[in-house]
Amino acid sequence: MMTLKVYLSGEIHTDWRDRIIEGASGLDVSFSGPVTDHDASDDCGAAILGREENKFWHDHKGARLNAIRTRRGIGEADVVVVRFGDKYRQWNAAFDAGVASALGKSLIVLHGPEHQHALKEIDAAALVVAERPEQVVQILRYVLTGALP
Amino acid sequence: MMTLKVYLSGEIHTDWRDRIIEGASGLDVSFSGPVTDHDASDDCGAAILGREENKFWHDHKGARLNAIRTRRGIGEADVVVVRFGDKYRQWNAAFDAGVASALGKSLIVLHGPEHQHALKEIDAAALVVAERPEQVVQILRYVLTGALP
Amino acid sequence: MMTLKVYLSGEIHTDWRDRIIEGASGLDVSFSGPVTDHDASDDCGAAILGREENKFWHDHKGARLNAIRTRRGIGEADVVVVRFGDKYRQWNAAFDAGVASALGKSLIVLHGPEHQHALKEIDAAALVVAERPEQVVQILRYVLTGALP
Amino acid sequence: MMTLKVYLSGEIHTDWRDRIIEGASGLDVSFSGPVTDHDASDDCGAAILGREENKFWHDHKGARLNAIRTRRGIGEADVVVVRFGDKYRQWNAAFDAGVASALGKSLIVLHGPEHQHALKEIDAAALVVAERPEQVVQILRYVLTGALP
Amino acid sequence: MMTLKVYLSGEIHTDWRDRIIEGASGLDVSFSGPVTDHDASDDCGAAILGREENKFWHDHKGARLNAIRTRRGIGEADVVVVRFGDKYRQWNAAFDAGVASALGKSLIVLHGPEHQHALKEIDAAALVVAERPEQVVQILRYVLTGALP
Amino acid sequence: MMTLKVYLSGEIHTDWRDRIIEGASGLDVSFSGPVTDHDASDDCGAAILGREENKFWHDHKGARLNAIRTRRGIGEADVVVVRFGDKYRQWNAAFDAGVASALGKSLIVLHGPEHQHALKEIDAAALVVAERPEQVVQILRYVLTGALP
Amino acid sequence: MMTLKVYLSGEIHTDWRDRIIEGASGLDVSFSGPVTDHDASDDCGAAILGREENKFWHDHKGARLNAIRTRRGIGEADVVVVRFGDKYRQWNAAFDAGVASALGKSLIVLHGPEHQHALKEIDAAALVVAERPEQVVQILRYVLTGALP
Amino acid sequence: MMTLKVYLSGEIHTDWRDRIIEGASGLDVSFSGPVTDHDASDDCGAAILGREENKFWHDHKGARLNAIRTRRGIGEADVVVVRFGDKYRQWNAAFDAGVASALGKSLIVLHGPEHQHALKEIDAAALVVAERPEQVVQILRYVLTGALP
Repeated sequence: MMTLKVYLSGEIHTDWRDRIIEGASGLDVSFSGPVTDHDASDDCGAAILGREENKFWHDHKGARLNAIRTRRGIGEADVVVVRFGDKYRQWNAAFDAGVASALGKSLIVLHGPEHQHALKEIDAAALVVAERPEQVVQILRYVLTGALP
Repeated sequence: MMTLKVYLSGEIHTDWRDRIIEGASGLDVSFSGPVTDHDASDDCGAAILGREENKFWHDHKGARLNAIRTRRGIGEADVVVVRFGDKYRQWNAAFDAGVASALGKSLIVLHGPEHQHALKEIDAAALVVAERPEQVVQILRYVLTGALP
Repeated sequence: MMTLKVYLSGEIHTDWRDRIIEGASGLDVSFSGPVTDHDASDDCGAAILGREENKFWHDHKGARLNAIRTRRGIGEADVVVVRFGDKYRQWNAAFDAGVASALGKSLIVLHGPEHQHALKEIDAAALVVAERPEQVVQILRYVLTGALP
Repeated sequence: MMTLKVYLSGEIHTDWRDRIIEGASGLDVSFSGPVTDHDASDDCGAAILGREENKFWHDHKGARLNAIRTRRGIGEADVVVVRFGDKYRQWNAAFDAGVASALGKSLIVLHGPEHQHALKEIDAAALVVAERPEQVVQILRYVLTGALP
Repeated sequence: MMTLKVYLSGEIHTDWRDRIIEGASGLDVSFSGPVTDHDASDDCGAAILGREENKFWHDHKGARLNAIRTRRGIGEADVVVVRFGDKYRQWNAAFDAGVASALGKSLIVLHGPEHQHALKEIDAAALVVAERPEQVVQILRYVLTGALP
Repeated sequence: MMTLKVYLSGEIHTDWRDRIIEGASGLDVSFSGPVTDHDASDDCGAAILGREENKFWHDHKGARLNAIRTRRGIGEADVVVVRFGDKYRQWNAAFDAGVASALGKSLIVLHGPEHQHALKEIDAAALVVAERPEQVVQILRYVLTGALP
Repeated sequence: MMTLKVYLSGEIHTDWRDRIIEGASGLDVSFSGPVTDHDASDDCGAAILGREENKFWHDHKGARLNAIRTRRGIGEADVVVVRFGDKYRQWNAAFDAGVASALGKSLIVLHGPEHQHALKEIDAAALVVAERPEQVVQILRYVLTGALP
Repeated sequence: MMTLKVYLSGEIHTDWRDRIIEGASGLDVSFSGPVTDHDASDDCGAAILGREENKFWHDHKGARLNAIRTRRGIGEADVVVVRFGDKYRQWNAAFDAGVASALGKSLIVLHGPEHQHALKEIDAAALVVAERPEQVVQILRYVLTGALP
């Protein structure tokens, strides 16, 4: 079987991606995800393509440029993990979950119990709802090797 | 040309759906959308399929049952309008936008200017970003007849 | 919205199809399903295309002829209901559920609690797991009108 | 030509997988399949994601977690072999056959003559119906090299 | 259920199409097929788009114009019937069968027993192999109504 | 067979659309196309969604709004006719031809002989290359009825 | 760019495959094709799966087994070359061309000028019509390197 | 993640391809594009397949042969860059952009500000509109590494 391709979408303010990637070392998994440098992600459009007076178009240029990376990452993935944290609206995480679901990707949603009701439609589209990054590592190990913790 | 099919996704606490549907009377448009009775939508799973002790599974059963309607409405639509309001997380609206985008539907996003930055990825996937329901009516009229306001 | 198209797959020895079709009278639903005359279904290949000495090819000709109807019914459906009863192997019902799932149809599985463990993979692919035909009627009514029982 | 990818679905109580894999050593084939440790497969959801009081949800969590592996294996396969044995309902094997058929995979069904009538719809969807694992090895050899036994 | 759409491909020198269409009167079937006026079919390109010196390009223009009708007819069909007769190469009939098969259409092949070996690959892709137009009528009646002759 | 759906793309400065539509009266064809009012098409975005300082974004808003109509028209069409005239760059016409080709639509290209070399890639993707609108009418009549001029 | 994958379909009585494969040595091309041992191809079903009294089912079993190889070869190919010779009906070659065309493969047809009229529909679906295997080698070289003979 | 595949479509009279390929050295990108030798591209059909009297068919044979390369390059690409220059009609560049857009490829359009209005529909379908090849290099670097200039 080929390397398992996993896309890590969602909040960028905690170390959840690192904990999954480190935990999965030794497994035949390759990870991808968005640019997680917040300023670079916000300003990439203006920095490369030129400044905009209007904040809406500043954001628009950046968001469309970032979409090159996001579309490819989700499009190539076998598994899409979407993590919802405590801050901000995180609508882009929910949007990624919708894209992943419509493309038939295996969706894993990662969030605390306080968001269960608000995320019920997304949880219902997921194959797995987990709370901690370590559980994602255990899932990847089980899917690849059959070993349980 | 066939009737234009429009799915209206998103917040259920203001009269935006009615204003679009009424404004579009006389145009060859058919509308669909989720069940907008909040209690029915939350409890439909338990009401038909039996109670659950655990709130997570209560929500899960309802969300999966509602997905029959949502998937069909978005799947049949030519245009998906997603409205973001001021209250709640509205992650299901963002999820619907992701599904619509991945299915190649024409996406119209409707929100106030205060959400521009938080919605920049979804706006970037949309063909139109509008602020008021009346603009959606004007868009539908223009798309169908070529008439401008 | 267009008429909801529902395919009724599975056991043919109880009156569950009639109970759903009668219960849904008044709703904008059209139903389809396999030929439920057991003898006709078994012998259609030989009756039209000629007898076979070998029972395997007798069955094969009939099964492929029936597939014209089955493929079309599932292919056109919005919702596929699969009912598992008490008798026989019913592998064709499980096969239809797999086809429906892979085609992205909304799947409703109908069976008694005694089959929960054996059907866990199929239940996990379904949007709804119900026990009685009357629940399917309630689901169709809710999906189309938002009304709960 | 690329390595032939074969998914081995179905009963887990005899050594048929081993006999195929050993027999095909030397051929350019890679095999995948479900987790065949019965207890791990049943309990994986609870073991990683937490216990459930209700047996239905215990099974549901496990079945959805296992679906990550199953979907990927079938989705990547060129050939899907489904083996039906003598014990249990084996509805998940029939479900896998339906998924494989709808995805356009080359389907090989493996079962004894006593199940011919009950499996006629699945046999009719298969390119090959065989009785013994050794025949599957001979098929793989012929498909890859043109050599007959 | 919607009207069954049937495309009738293949030889144009006997009355097999008429016999099927007349036999199926009273059933909810709509038929389509190629232009069966041999001269018109051969010369349509030159007649509308201008003469060609070179016979190859004369044929090419006609064949591509006819493809507008053929593609649409097969693309819309639920069932494609391909009839092989005694004269000519009939490579276009075999080509249509290949297109129909790749598009997942239900394929019915109609030919005399003398062509069984030469048509074995096409027969193997068909759901039904019949010899007489009356059998096709019986098949359509059975598929739509469950009635056997 | 269903009504033939034809999308008319390309130049808006001559009466070619009217000549085709009038010529085809009496045939079972429905036509669609872009908004052909040049000013409305250019300014629709600003008129409905608000003015832009920057001409690029003025154009962008209009072009994305027009895309709702264009995507739907091409997406629903059986046949896409693309007309190249003498004036302007007409890159949007060539873009529409590319979209139509990638979606598998039957493509008819309409242009004078002076553009043969410049349009050779697009002509090569077309089923028919014609010079006059009257030929398109003759093609539609032949495709639907088999009658030649 | 990845290795160019070419499937060689059609007659098995001349050395055209060898001439293409040898001519293309040094180019980044991989070739596949059917089993070209005529007896093995005819008898593979019976040899592996058991004898049949009825010649039709003997052929059927072999043809379906061969389909595992054919479907995969055409499905993976970038380019499908179909060669028509002077002997036999060669309906399977025309069928392969139809499959390749419907799957959007680049189709090259190889035949003598005496078959131009009979093959006009298949030629019209091809990107290239050639007469000699050496031309196919020149095409592959040009496509990969831009070099002309 | 796998190597990023980029197709470079459009004008062949300046060194823009070289500047991108050189600028991207060190990044995990592979490039493809059309044959950029103008004479070879125009005459390939006649050179390999034989001369044509009629210029239209001369062009047609060449264009269809080139389509083998173009379709594959765009079909395999993650990103399609289309460059519009100052000379010629460049309808094939706009056609490629339409194909890329319909296939869901990430589209980057490269042109000077003087073409903004004429290219507004194509720009509206693009994720990025840039003016200089160096910006494309910066985009590829950002997409792959997150680094800004």
